Amino acid sequence: MSDMPVDEFRRAGHQVVDWIADYLHNMRDLPVLPNVEPGFLIDALPASAPESGEPIDGILADFERQIVPGMTHWNHPNFHGYFSVSASGPGILGEFLTSALNVNHMVWKSSPAATELEQVTTRWLAEWCGLGPEFFGEILDTASTSTMHAIAAAREMADPDARTKGGSRDLIVYTSEHAHSSIEKGAIAVGIGQDNVRKIGVDDAFRMRPDILAQAMAADRAAGKRPCCVVPTAGTTSTTSVDPISDVIGIAEQYGAWVHVDAAYGGVAAIVPEHRHILNGIERAHSMVVNPHKWLFCPIDLSVLYTSRPDILRRAFSLVPEYLRTNEDGRVVNLMDYGVPLGRRFRSLKLWFVMRYFGHQRVIETVRNHIQWTNELACEISRHPDFELAAPVPMALICFRMRGSDDANRKLMDAVNRTGHAFLSHTVLNGHFVLRLSISNIRVTKADVERTWQTIQSAAAAL
Amino acid sequence: MSDMPVDEFRRAGHQVVDWIADYLHNMRDLPVLPNVEPGFLIDALPASAPESGEPIDGILADFERQIVPGMTHWNHPNFHGYFSVSASGPGILGEFLTSALNVNHMVWKSSPAATELEQVTTRWLAEWCGLGPEFFGEILDTASTSTMHAIAAAREMADPDARTKGGSRDLIVYTSEHAHSSIEKGAIAVGIGQDNVRKIGVDDAFRMRPDILAQAMAADRAAGKRPCCVVPTAGTTSTTSVDPISDVIGIAEQYGAWVHVDAAYGGVAAIVPEHRHILNGIERAHSMVVNPHKWLFCPIDLSVLYTSRPDILRRAFSLVPEYLRTNEDGRVVNLMDYGVPLGRRFRSLKLWFVMRYFGHQRVIETVRNHIQWTNELACEISRHPDFELAAPVPMALICFRMRGSDDANRKLMDAVNRTGHAFLSHTVLNGHFVLRLSISNIRVTKADVERTWQTIQSAAAAL
Repeated sequence: MSDMPVDEFRRAGHQVVDWIADYLHNMRDLPVLPNVEPGFLIDALPASAPESGEPIDGILADFERQIVPGMTHWNHPNFHGYFSVSASGPGILGEFLTSALNVNHMVWKSSPAATELEQVTTRWLAEWCGLGPEFFGEILDTASTSTMHAIAAAREMADPDARTKGGSRDLIVYTSEHAHSSIEKGAIAVGIGQDNVRKIGVDDAFRMRPDILAQAMAADRAAGKRPCCVVPTAGTTSTTSVDPISDVIGIAEQYGAWVHVDAAYGGVAAIVPEHRHILNGIERAHSMVVNPHKWLFCPIDLSVLYTSRPDILRRAFSLVPEYLRTNEDGRVVNLMDYGVPLGRRFRSLKLWFVMRYFGHQRVIETVRNHIQWTNELACEISRHPDFELAAPVPMALICFRMRGSDDANRKLMDAVNRTGHAFLSHTVLNGHFVLRLSISNIRVTKADVERTWQTIQSAAAAL
Repeated sequence: MSDMPVDEFRRAGHQVVDWIADYLHNMRDLPVLPNVEPGFLIDALPASAPESGEPIDGILADFERQIVPGMTHWNHPNFHGYFSVSASGPGILGEFLTSALNVNHMVWKSSPAATELEQVTTRWLAEWCGLGPEFFGEILDTASTSTMHAIAAAREMADPDARTKGGSRDLIVYTSEHAHSSIEKGAIAVGIGQDNVRKIGVDDAFRMRPDILAQAMAADRAAGKRPCCVVPTAGTTSTTSVDPISDVIGIAEQYGAWVHVDAAYGGVAAIVPEHRHILNGIERAHSMVVNPHKWLFCPIDLSVLYTSRPDILRRAFSLVPEYLRTNEDGRVVNLMDYGVPLGRRFRSLKLWFVMRYFGHQRVIETVRNHIQWTNELACEISRHPDFELAAPVPMALICFRMRGSDDANRKLMDAVNRTGHAFLSHTVLNGHFVLRLSISNIRVTKADVERTWQTIQSAAAAL
């Protein structure tokens, strides 16, 4: 056998391009959330793969008929759940080329251009975010993985024996009670343990309180524990609150703890000059994660882990088996040295396409628009007699609720999502069920935002 | 701003399809290994991203001019290094659609079809590999990540306190001295520690010796350690040797240890009926990793972690923050519960395309051809007066050397790779430098294999 014949690939490829172009163009006609029940696809598909091959046309037809109607359309401008994201045109084309090249740049030699483009694009992005040249960047799949790596580096710095002898039960990680679950999960994964994660209390704006952090670190040290890592967030998941990074670092420095900044979402806001301040103090952090697949128009997955201590990250993970030694060792970066995954997809290509196609100024303008439209809608919501804001709006996410019970708000969310015209998610703030509305899609317009608001008001009126 | 206009996307997309079709068609004209020096691309590209956006045509032209000449072409039929892999036509098209849909199925609701297609395709593949319905499958990026998850599950089974209190320094992991570095790295990552990985000796065919394993486990228990995980390999990286899985499991069972089978490469060989035996005993294993991005014609990345104890994997990792609770919880699989990464790319789509397009019988035929051609070439090499085999050839990889010094063999490898006509990698066996020649590309023909052999002989003659 051989691969699909090239002519067939060409024909089917053109067909897929047209499908994607139409999909992007007609996106607004699709329901954001599909109307399907658990098991709908498992029940519809055969229990076994086919014995004989099938024509590509039939597979593409089934994709349209069976898969697409069961998708939640994250690319839809009225998808406002979780954090809204977008696969831009140049990002999609970059990923397409990546899949065709199909390289694995675990070592420089195994794809020199992929290794070096990862270094170039992560440096470009570092500059946009205000990180100095001391920050080394590597690309991983998701922020959860990046943060786990940062916590492993913190473990390595605090307890160099852990690599050889195993985890310690006295290392302590600090983050806020509003931090993402990935910090706890990272601590669980690397053998620090969930009980050794302190969730520091927040102020009225859901920002980590440095005074409580200082007390907690002092108490732990007094109790014979070893504070090893502090994780402030620039853009928490529930509310996009921004922890006071500089103050937090000042406290962490007293204990020699690693500081990892979770800017998975908010790091991109720092590209906009008037929002740069959210990363104030970052030059003293040991690491930071930012996800271009969140707000920088790259298709998922693409998370960048930066560290000013690549030597420690490397010490935590490097293992070079004989079959991966190369003549260039010592003169090049071999990315496998900096983490768990040996294999690496050529993810920087789509980042290169996106950064070049849009350029610095258009990215600033777009992110600025998102923040502005979000704030305008937040004003409207706060002025509406039936609604109220549930948190400040520092970036491009609104936490709000209908005046009334949690149950009514839950019903409102489900009603909005059932319309298919918009998709919201939720969180709990101060014990109350709260709706979340995120505005970061590259195709979203002011009119889309207004339509979402109309949908919410209509659904509320119909409850 | 908005995204790239749809008409522009359509035009550029068609251009990219044609480029990829030509690339696949003319692959054999490209040098497998590029002729570039460290820093070639870093020096050639601007230090900063552009301020203003650039036309897509210029970016695509630079891709051809600057990136492609610096690639090692893993898709080339004469790429025989590491493990040869391939992005097949249907796999590339599937990935293209994935990037356009851009969904994140961390929970069922956030993309029902992506969650369910992952369950369906991993079940299809399990059936092909001979795994029963008790095996739950999830897709991760690479085998290193999958194996780290398996070791974390082993830790959870042996020491349920580790999740909350942190790693233990008395848990022991066993694998062979020929196992992949990811087993050690996984043990380092999850806080078991490198010193607590026992590398069990091998027999003449580089297979783990059950007698040595039994002694090591007994000695550890006698010393108060806790044997928690045994990792046999079906297809080791150096030689594709196959550990005696059934015997190994028999020993592990005496200690209640988790057995994780590293079949990242070899699992696909088990699809061929006459090679199914390499996974004999798998029904008693707790987990297995197999990488469709290695030998099953899917573009990187796509690694499947199977486990017959998803309850333990879930206990090791599940953490559900409020903002990710859904109405369907309890009735659906939410894949975020089974590992570190929260975000998940819709990787199963390309697996679905590949399994359907080629079908069971054509996959069997292709993998069987690879194994047969490999064995035929191994015969030729063993008959040649100047060469010798350095290991048995159970699958589709030949370890061989030119009679002579290690240095001469190193020079031979570099000489072959410098021709651009073929790419080989190396390992060390019994203290000697050995060449590795892997034959698993979907486009490779018997004639390609013969051309590689000619290239090797010419390079040897010219030394």
